[in-house]
Amino acid sequence: MSPISTLPRRSLAGLLLAAAATAPAQVHAQAQADPLPSWRDGEARRAILDFLRAVTTEGGREYRPPEERLAVFDNDGTLWVEQPIYTQVVFAFDRLRAMAPQHPDWASREPFRAAISGDKAALAAAGEKAIVEIIAATHTGMTPEAFRQTALDWLATARHPRFDRPYTECIYQPMLEVMRLFRAQGFRTCIVSGGTTEFMRPWAERVYGVPPGQVVGTTFKLRYELQRNRGELLTLPEIDAVDDGPGKPVGISRFIGQRPLAAFGNSDGDYEMLQYTTTGDGRRLGMIVHHDDAEREFAYDRLSPIGRLDRALRDAPAAGWQLISMRQDWGQVLP
Amino acid sequence: MSPISTLPRRSLAGLLLAAAATAPAQVHAQAQADPLPSWRDGEARRAILDFLRAVTTEGGREYRPPEERLAVFDNDGTLWVEQPIYTQVVFAFDRLRAMAPQHPDWASREPFRAAISGDKAALAAAGEKAIVEIIAATHTGMTPEAFRQTALDWLATARHPRFDRPYTECIYQPMLEVMRLFRAQGFRTCIVSGGTTEFMRPWAERVYGVPPGQVVGTTFKLRYELQRNRGELLTLPEIDAVDDGPGKPVGISRFIGQRPLAAFGNSDGDYEMLQYTTTGDGRRLGMIVHHDDAEREFAYDRLSPIGRLDRALRDAPAAGWQLISMRQDWGQVLP
Repeated sequence: MSPISTLPRRSLAGLLLAAAATAPAQVHAQAQADPLPSWRDGEARRAILDFLRAVTTEGGREYRPPEERLAVFDNDGTLWVEQPIYTQVVFAFDRLRAMAPQHPDWASREPFRAAISGDKAALAAAGEKAIVEIIAATHTGMTPEAFRQTALDWLATARHPRFDRPYTECIYQPMLEVMRLFRAQGFRTCIVSGGTTEFMRPWAERVYGVPPGQVVGTTFKLRYELQRNRGELLTLPEIDAVDDGPGKPVGISRFIGQRPLAAFGNSDGDYEMLQYTTTGDGRRLGMIVHHDDAEREFAYDRLSPIGRLDRALRDAPAAGWQLISMRQDWGQVLP
Repeated sequence: MSPISTLPRRSLAGLLLAAAATAPAQVHAQAQADPLPSWRDGEARRAILDFLRAVTTEGGREYRPPEERLAVFDNDGTLWVEQPIYTQVVFAFDRLRAMAPQHPDWASREPFRAAISGDKAALAAAGEKAIVEIIAATHTGMTPEAFRQTALDWLATARHPRFDRPYTECIYQPMLEVMRLFRAQGFRTCIVSGGTTEFMRPWAERVYGVPPGQVVGTTFKLRYELQRNRGELLTLPEIDAVDDGPGKPVGISRFIGQRPLAAFGNSDGDYEMLQYTTTGDGRRLGMIVHHDDAEREFAYDRLSPIGRLDRALRDAPAAGWQLISMRQDWGQVLP
């Protein structure tokens, strides 16, 4: 017998009535509510709120009109979990195995053989070049739309090895709140990620509220062609632009066309994006998510091969970049 | 004595009172007013209104949700006048002359010598390559922000040789109305132009209502660097992507990330953009501004070196692209 069936009939209606009666008060309470409920009070939280107050207070010395309000966010390690390995790399390896039956030559061709058979020693020896080849083989030779569907299909079933939930739920609740708060204050929120644009676009709007045109990432070259009387774009196995390090300000300028007022990152790959943002005129905000919470997520910085944070950590105080301590500043990590 | 001072004092207050009294009725009349007042009734106007009704009527067979509502517009010859020569080329030549004192070597270096001295024969002989060199010399070697300022400064004083008004007022009033109407119906309106992104971005929002991130154009490569402790982008004299012909669908996919529902162009350079748009699934709209009005603007198509419209004109009926006759469909041309 379920607990609800033990309630007398009247009490259910009574509960509904009570809920209805309190609704207006709840709405009011929500409007007054903490805009960053997953953040603990501290310097990081105050830096965000102070910055927003400064640039949105009309008549204030640091006021910026809505058309200048741009905030950029790295994705891996800043908006979603990047350990123990970048999600897009996990996807590429899974995809390679799924595609293997259609590519019998891969059984004897490196680095595909090593990746498919799980030969970690051979893969490690092949290094980064092998990863790039595996990403190209699984991400190109199709239309962006067809690729997006493979990404969506994979994300629908794949689960994070530690958190045992879909990767699109391995996102940081406090950062969702920051993006929402920035948008509520008239900011455009853009993703500027080392991952490929097309891997993020199909779900960034649903998960982060960021539409496809505001997702900047690494891109492959495209070729326009007619396929059965239909205009299509073919993704070519040739990198067009790498959106990492100094490529991030380049991508921001090219795609968005203005210098951000605020930037959030977590690794040395975000160094130049933070620098480009915070060396602009007037009030700026640069923040670094510091992964120091082995218990609830992961703890890594200077020595990590994934999401290495060394140079940016060293230069943060001089540059005025505010660290976000996952352990201290976030009351909750995942949603 | 000015006419207004001949009015008895009371009549001014009376006029104001009368105006105030009629204000609500005017607002109502405006809400009901023709959304395309500069368009004459005809197939072109009806094609626009029918398309918008079809894709925005909820529950209708051809309904598209707001996130799919993307309309793209070529700029030269579609949104503003491109004759007798592309505005950006006029800018490049003026800029070259303005920069000449700082570049004494140009006096004896082709094609700069020919351009500065007005040696038309030498320039014509040097061909398109000369134009590209002159554009590179005047558009690169500085930050995008510095370039934008030179473009704004020039646009503030330069005047169209025939219409004797600023180039940013040599725009098509009927197309402004189309862009506004599309936005009112939940569309994002993007510019997709063969001109360079940075030449359009500084004024596209004010003139067309299109923000910098929705301007897609030809781009130069950029390099990130520190200049006196400030992160800056340097525009390099090397083309990154040519946003013309098959480069237009590529640019749309790369920058905006979705296939448009509607495309407006005027030349063969828009062929692939129109094709990419109208060969998508469901209801689409492809329209071509046909310059057939020598009296109010210019008349040109198949044989024009500027804005040549040949292949697209020939294939328009089979492709279902609707021609806009400037002479017949537009009651007014410039604002």
